[in-house]
Parts: sequence; C-alpha cells; structure tokens
Amino acid sequence: MKRVLIIGGGGMIGQKLAHHLSARGLNGDTDIEVTLFDMVFPKGGAPAANRITGHLADTDAVGQLLEARYDVIFHLAAVVSGEAEANFQIGWEVNGEAVIHFGRKLEEEHRKSKGAYVPSLVFTSSIAVFGPPFPDKIPDNQPLTPQTSYGAQKVCAEMIVNDMGRRGIARAVAIRLPTVVVRPGRPNMAASSFFSGIIREPLNGQEAILPVSDDVRHWHASPRAAVRFLCQAAGLDPALLGDNRALTMPGVSCTVAEQIEALRNLAGDKTVALIKREPNETIQRIVAGWPRNFDPQRAKALGFEAETNFDEIIRVYIEDELDR
Amino acid sequence: MKRVLIIGGGGMIGQKLAHHLSARGLNGDTDIEVTLFDMVFPKGGAPAANRITGHLADTDAVGQLLEARYDVIFHLAAVVSGEAEANFQIGWEVNGEAVIHFGRKLEEEHRKSKGAYVPSLVFTSSIAVFGPPFPDKIPDNQPLTPQTSYGAQKVCAEMIVNDMGRRGIARAVAIRLPTVVVRPGRPNMAASSFFSGIIREPLNGQEAILPVSDDVRHWHASPRAAVRFLCQAAGLDPALLGDNRALTMPGVSCTVAEQIEALRNLAGDKTVALIKREPNETIQRIVAGWPRNFDPQRAKALGFEAETNFDEIIRVYIEDELDR
Repeated sequence: MKRVLIIGGGGMIGQKLAHHLSARGLNGDTDIEVTLFDMVFPKGGAPAANRITGHLADTDAVGQLLEARYDVIFHLAAVVSGEAEANFQIGWEVNGEAVIHFGRKLEEEHRKSKGAYVPSLVFTSSIAVFGPPFPDKIPDNQPLTPQTSYGAQKVCAEMIVNDMGRRGIARAVAIRLPTVVVRPGRPNMAASSFFSGIIREPLNGQEAILPVSDDVRHWHASPRAAVRFLCQAAGLDPALLGDNRALTMPGVSCTVAEQIEALRNLAGDKTVALIKREPNETIQRIVAGWPRNFDPQRAKALGFEAETNFDEIIRVYIEDELDR
Repeated sequence: MKRVLIIGGGGMIGQKLAHHLSARGLNGDTDIEVTLFDMVFPKGGAPAANRITGHLADTDAVGQLLEARYDVIFHLAAVVSGEAEANFQIGWEVNGEAVIHFGRKLEEEHRKSKGAYVPSLVFTSSIAVFGPPFPDKIPDNQPLTPQTSYGAQKVCAEMIVNDMGRRGIARAVAIRLPTVVVRPGRPNMAASSFFSGIIREPLNGQEAILPVSDDVRHWHASPRAAVRFLCQAAGLDPALLGDNRALTMPGVSCTVAEQIEALRNLAGDKTVALIKREPNETIQRIVAGWPRNFDPQRAKALGFEAETNFDEIIRVYIEDELDR
C-alpha cells in the first residue's frame, strides 16, 4: 500500500486532489491511503482520508508528521500572494522558513533510514517566480527574478526542493502552476482571486468586481488540470528532469476580455452584465508584474497538458461545480 | 554617530572589515561605533569594537541583537560551501532559515518604528548562485541555477534581501564575492580553501595540497578588495540598483597554473616546489560546478574594482600578512 500525504489538504486543490485519489487512485494505483494535513478542513470534505490538523510553521508538528514516512508527499500549503504582499512576516515564515524546515525534517528521515527512505515529493510553485520585463512567451530557461514577496518565497522553496532532488533525498519536483481558475467557493486573499470571481459569481447570479483592465493577459488552467499535473508529477522519473527540478506547467494564455467573451458564449449577455469594473491600484500593480504567456516546452515534452482555450476552462467549472 | 553591526564579525573578512573601520571609518565617516556578532572571536582581534557572542540560528539572540537598530548591518555569517555540502541540516538551517529569520526580525524593527528605521544592509552572497553550463564570461543577467547546497542557500538569502530592498525595509544590497584569496591563517572547510593554501603555505615554508588540476580556472579577489566592496556597497544609493539588488563583484579570472606562475615570479621555484598534487574527487566535482569568469558590468559601472592580476593578489597577502 502506498501512503500519500497532502500538506495543504484542506485547501481547494488539496481537497480536489484527495477526491481524485479516493475515486481513481494515484496514476492507476488504487492501493493507497491518503492523509491530509492542514490548519482547517472544510465541512464534509474529501472521503476516506485521514486528517491531521496543524500549522506548517509549527516545527514540532511537521517533524512528527514526517516521522510517518509517507511514500508520496504533495506540498500545496502556502500563504497566498496577496497576503504575502500585505504581511511580510507570515509570508516569509510560512512560504520561506517553514518550507526549508520541512525540507530539513524530510532529510532527517532520509538520513535516519540510512538512505532507504526516498519519498516522491511534489511541491507547488508558481509562475510568480518570474518578474518583468517578460518576453512575449516566457521560455523554460527564463531567469528567476520575482518582484513580489510571494514569488521570492517560491524561489526559495524551489531551491530546497531542487537541492533535495539533487542529493537523492526525495524524488522531487516543483511544478509552477498557472493561475488556477475557476476556483469554486468564495474569493480568497490571492491578488488573482478576481480571475475566478468574474466567471464564478456571474454564473451564480451574483455581481463580481473586475479590478484590472480588460487587456490584462494572464496564464490559466482549471483545477482539474492542476490535479492532473500533480498526479503526473508524482509519477515522473526524476532522471528526466536533469539538473532543474522546477517545471513550468502548460496553461491557456488569454486576456480578461477573451475570458469575458468566453463567458458570454456560454452564459449570455445578462451573465456578463454582472461584472462590475472597479479599478484597484494595488491589484493592478501586483498583476502588472505577472507573466502573461509561456512556452513550457519541457513540461509538454514530458506529457503535461492543460486546456486549450478559456471556454474549456469555464466548462470544467460548470461540469465539476454546477452540474453536481 | 553611526552604529555599525558586523554579523560574522569574528570571521576572517569580518575582522578585516572591523580593523578597516576602526582605522579609517566607513566611507570617510569616522564617527562610528562597531559591534561584532559571532559564535567565536579570534584572540586579540579587531580593536575598539563591541563583541556579542551568539549563534545566527538562535532566533531569540538575533531578535535581541536587532532591537538595537544599527544604522549599517554587514551580514557576512555563513556555513561555508564544503560544510554545507557535507551537512544538509546545518547549511540550510544557518544559510537558509536563519537568514530569512534575520530578515523577518529586521522587518519587525522597521515596522515597530513606523517605517522610520531603514538600515543599510550589505549581505555577502556568492558566485555559487550560478551553475553550469557557463558562458565564457558570465553576464550580469545570468540565471540563478546553483548546483550546490551552498549556492541554493545563497539564492534564498538574495531573495529575501532583494525583497527587503524592494519593500523599503532596508537599503539592501547583496554582493557576490569572488573566491577571496589569499586567506590568512589555517585552511577551512570551504571547498575553495586550497586556492589560498597553495599560495599561503608555500610562502610560509610549508607544504600545500593541490586537489584539482592546473587548468582549473576560477574567479578571485583579495581580502582587501572584499573589504573595499563591503564599504562601497554600504554607501551605495539603492536607487542605482533598480529591481535587482544582487551584484556580482569584479575579480581576477585565472587558472591554477597562472596562480602558481605568479607565485614563482614573486617567491621562486623552491617555494613553488612545496605544492603537492593530490587529486581529490569530491573537491574536483564541487569546483567543476563553479563559475570561471565574469563580465560584471553593473558593479564596474557603480565603481567597484578588484585587482587586475593574480600577482597583485599575492602582493596584498605579503603586504597585509607577512610584512607586519
């Protein structure tokens, strides 16, 4: 039996991953046991999974957690971009220090096992590791020049994940997720939250605030694609990654205007009319520093695939969240 | 009066910096008070400086230290490359976690002062942030792709230093020192230790071990140049740095063979005969992943200057260490 740990298992993607693992197993292997670690869990929530409540910055709790030597670890937990920009302390503590501490604890288990324990580790990084000026399509060898606290923290995390892989402590890979839309539920503190909001709220008959201009271009994938990326990354042969264990995932590059047109195609003018334009300078400034398009050749060559257009991304939301 | 803190003030460069500040002040300003923080201090040591004994990984000690709100902070403390590669735990704890924690504590003081406290912060990074394959001369926009634990840790440190600068928490700059030679005193655990050893030991009439081949090319500056870089960096207008507050310092690019010839020029064949070739695979492997030459245009444009050849570097050692 394979034991799977999802750190950040109470979050949106963690829950979707837990549901997926419970329904379909991990890459075809259904003989698995899933444990979720998070500060809080949604009511109801993913079935057939153990839940451990704790804080990533609680070094004792994380040390104890890792003593169980899970075969596969998904590390999804993070302070989101908007909160990391608003609060220097908590962002650097959780996304920086705590991730390094997690790596040290994992190495401790590896060393205690005399090298026998080498888990698969999939860490979710972000395209925020890149900063402007950007080329039209960002190549895989784009330098890491983040211009936000969140991005800087994710670079730190990529560094220790890569180092663990290089040293054979874990079969490690960091995947840089596109901005995942359409997120179900309520807005969060991520500066990117509106990208989901302008689709989700109107589809649910509610007003949504658009804080940026229509020509903002960004990089997206659905939660379903994100879960697929995570599972595929867990099954990857690390030898295929070479010296660089951070992979930019594929996505859909489109403007806010194109997203609104996709919504209009699927749900009509009345739905689109629920989007209210309320420019927000802070969000505009953060988003202006974000990448707009990628050429993720390495991930594509390894078989990773996102949606091909924004209509598909909206349809995934309708199928997975509204048609239930 | 300007209050200056040197974290790592007991080390070789910290002591030389303290001596320099005591003799000449900081960029012409002699109304300064110098405090050194380190685990241990050499006997005798730099004059007229307060000494505080503590460990960088002791979060309480660092928090207390920073409450004194120094005007200028030099952060030189690190676990050296060889030790960081040998010991995953201590390298990531000190060079990774503890540096992030230091940044958080500094931000706490900045915030408690309602933004009035904005110290100058000079952090010593390393050319180990770069990894192969290298171009002939590494440009300033070379991507950060470290292939050692030490290099990965220095990237993390650069990330939080840059973030502090971006947010106006400190007038922050990270300088990537060349490999500093000729270090006085005894060999240390840095994989680069032999670069000093093959000059220092023969000049002192002792045998030295050369663990790599003569055609190894590397990037060097003297301790005197390193101290000059530090002081200059402390006086730099951060606005000149733009979005990237990490600067590769100038240096001398030369092969081991050229270094040995420089020693022969200055000290003769008998001295050179004290160099014994004893290939060491671990050191060869680490050094093979190190940069060999740079084109540090940004630093040069800002007025930073190293020596121009290796003869000069040896002469600095003779003047500063042997002629006393």
